[in-house]
Amino acid sequence: MNALLTDLYQLTMAAGYWSAGKAEETAAFELFVRRLPANRNYMIAAGLEQAVEYLLHLRFEEDEIRYLQGLPQFRRAEPGFFEALRRFRFTGDVFAVPEGTPVFAGEPLLTVRAPLMEAQIPETFLLSMVGFQTMIATKAARMVDASGGRAVVEFGTRRAHSPQAGLYAARAAFVGGCAGTSNVLAGMRFGIPVFGTAAHSWVQSFPTEREAFERLQGLLGDGTTYLIDTYDTLEGARQAVSLGKPFWGVRLDSGNLIELSRAVRRILDEGGCRGAKIMATGDLNEYKILELVAAGAPIDAFGVGTELATSMDAPSHGAVYKMVEHVSPLGRRYTAKFSADKATLPGIKQVFRFRDHDMIGRSHECPSPDAEALLRPVILRGELAQPLPGAAEARQRARRGIEALPKQLRTLFEVDPPYRIDLSEELIQLAREVRARR
Amino acid sequence: MNALLTDLYQLTMAAGYWSAGKAEETAAFELFVRRLPANRNYMIAAGLEQAVEYLLHLRFEEDEIRYLQGLPQFRRAEPGFFEALRRFRFTGDVFAVPEGTPVFAGEPLLTVRAPLMEAQIPETFLLSMVGFQTMIATKAARMVDASGGRAVVEFGTRRAHSPQAGLYAARAAFVGGCAGTSNVLAGMRFGIPVFGTAAHSWVQSFPTEREAFERLQGLLGDGTTYLIDTYDTLEGARQAVSLGKPFWGVRLDSGNLIELSRAVRRILDEGGCRGAKIMATGDLNEYKILELVAAGAPIDAFGVGTELATSMDAPSHGAVYKMVEHVSPLGRRYTAKFSADKATLPGIKQVFRFRDHDMIGRSHECPSPDAEALLRPVILRGELAQPLPGAAEARQRARRGIEALPKQLRTLFEVDPPYRIDLSEELIQLAREVRARR
Repeated sequence: MNALLTDLYQLTMAAGYWSAGKAEETAAFELFVRRLPANRNYMIAAGLEQAVEYLLHLRFEEDEIRYLQGLPQFRRAEPGFFEALRRFRFTGDVFAVPEGTPVFAGEPLLTVRAPLMEAQIPETFLLSMVGFQTMIATKAARMVDASGGRAVVEFGTRRAHSPQAGLYAARAAFVGGCAGTSNVLAGMRFGIPVFGTAAHSWVQSFPTEREAFERLQGLLGDGTTYLIDTYDTLEGARQAVSLGKPFWGVRLDSGNLIELSRAVRRILDEGGCRGAKIMATGDLNEYKILELVAAGAPIDAFGVGTELATSMDAPSHGAVYKMVEHVSPLGRRYTAKFSADKATLPGIKQVFRFRDHDMIGRSHECPSPDAEALLRPVILRGELAQPLPGAAEARQRARRGIEALPKQLRTLFEVDPPYRIDLSEELIQLAREVRARR
Repeated sequence: MNALLTDLYQLTMAAGYWSAGKAEETAAFELFVRRLPANRNYMIAAGLEQAVEYLLHLRFEEDEIRYLQGLPQFRRAEPGFFEALRRFRFTGDVFAVPEGTPVFAGEPLLTVRAPLMEAQIPETFLLSMVGFQTMIATKAARMVDASGGRAVVEFGTRRAHSPQAGLYAARAAFVGGCAGTSNVLAGMRFGIPVFGTAAHSWVQSFPTEREAFERLQGLLGDGTTYLIDTYDTLEGARQAVSLGKPFWGVRLDSGNLIELSRAVRRILDEGGCRGAKIMATGDLNEYKILELVAAGAPIDAFGVGTELATSMDAPSHGAVYKMVEHVSPLGRRYTAKFSADKATLPGIKQVFRFRDHDMIGRSHECPSPDAEALLRPVILRGELAQPLPGAAEARQRARRGIEALPKQLRTLFEVDPPYRIDLSEELIQLAREVRARR
């Protein structure tokens, strides 16, 4: 499944490891984000469930192997390598931070320890899946925070980077705190509440707006949301009221949302529809939501598409996957990169969460009974260590985790000082030794 | 296939059309980008092949229908609606601009004319797939233009918005002019050249850089690219030379690329490796590529990841899908939206390309034998009208199309005046009539 959905060099390296007799040597890689993206003070880990599914089902099909055999890069690869691909199973260990956990720059979200070839090939998929979902869960958490308790619904599949990206964006947005999504497949596959009623084309397909509204109400009853801005927003609100049938509320998708929401609220209230809600959509982001909330706009729910599903202001968090240990017949080596702007720390790590700060240490450390170790076994010797929490449980963890964060981190702008991240003495010592040995 | 990979409201509207007896009324929708994104003077249409594949195979499976039946939104839907989903086939017509064609704001890339329900349900998938690939093909074209004829290779799957987004990004980047991709599945599925040799972890997994290089050369022969910045870039270049074996070149992934490429070029030349190439990677975009080229940095090829696969500076182009015609027992109606910031033009359109400008007219117009009509039949009555060109042919069309553009559009900044887009008299007249009739 998806075995070729990787960078070619993962496979040329695998062939090289095989030729060099190193395929069975053990290596450990860590997946982390180097720097918090602009204006973010924390991230929400997400995407683990799909990463684990991928590792547990990673197989090379015969046609895929044949394709590789035809590439010039594998002309000198040994037949034994292709045999190894045929037998390929992920047999290693994975440790990971549970989905929904707030995390910070430099903290491993996922650690893979496996035979070199098995640890190398999944790099591309893992980075893409965990990196993307973490980015979207983080963006969603910002919007939910900005909304001050109002519902935020994810509507972004049409603007996501392919329909499949929309599916995972919906999942990650739910983990980050959204109330649900418009993506039906995400609803079916991940048990996420799905929302949506009608678009402008619905209104346009009837001779009059009134008839369009009546028909929609006939279908959706008290769950109906009338989209009222196709022709004239205030007129649309009056139509909704005048039908005299139960409905959930109205949706505004254009114009000045502060003024329109007030005017519409008045029309609803004066028409005896005090219980009817107002949902706002249309190029919203966390800053606009905050502005609407701060202005006291009578909006009950926000639908967010493009900005959420693409993490518009920070469309990549630059996740990386770096080798930190390598065990060969020559012994155990702790590895790191020292290139100018991309240095990494050696050794398998653990993240210890204290009440008001984190400490990144070595995996065997046990600094305090008060500290929570964030990375937990997920796959052991190729088998699931325990059932993974789904999206709903991850969402609860995110909510608790965000509430436990120092208050000042929950703003839409970078705070100074940032959340405190210490490195343990042992880790600093190891880094020094590795550096000195070069 | 992927039938639920859509917004819920497409399906509630479909149920509503069914109840209202309108499911078989015909509607036409157009997919277009409202405004060119910042700094772009043109876009490259892409993603049609996947869009067509989706439409031709769109089916609802029994478990999907059962899921829908369990949702509150379908509590009042008629049994006949679910029967209609069971029998669902796309039976309509699709007209589209061939992949690789330069296109502009407001020009339909794709027109769907079908029974209302069949035209409505695909909206989300079509927008996402065509919107995304068009965005990436456009970004790639900018980089290829900036590179002044040097090869640009797409390396972005790890930073794409999910691995599947990486697959389609690789395809679209190739259409936009990239020489190839690191994404192996894209290579296999779309026939795109694949590139890649080794990462830092390869170097780290050997006791010495020299041994790592030797092993890589043993595998890849004269196709070898040594990644030389794991420890010390210039030392790495000397190692590459000193091995005395044929190789393709070296890759720089960090540091000051102008200075390093010059110093490395000297080391290669003085070591008798004048034919060895230098590839640069590491957070590149079209502006950095232009800067490197302008500075005369001796770089022969660029590898681009994050910025390309996410269209980092413009991660959404905001494609929309709007109803323009509707045929019911009451007759043909031309539809448009008049909301403040989101107005649309009514009627099925054609884009006529003249030598130095385009004209958007009504589909039946024939303004001049010199004008090329960009939208062509792709699906007729649910069947493929003719085999679609693949990615390679689309790439050629893009190259020819970009070369034919007015020279001043091929810059990395917005030009004023922009490319001239006229509206035909007939179209203007129709818009006036529709507006007046409201």
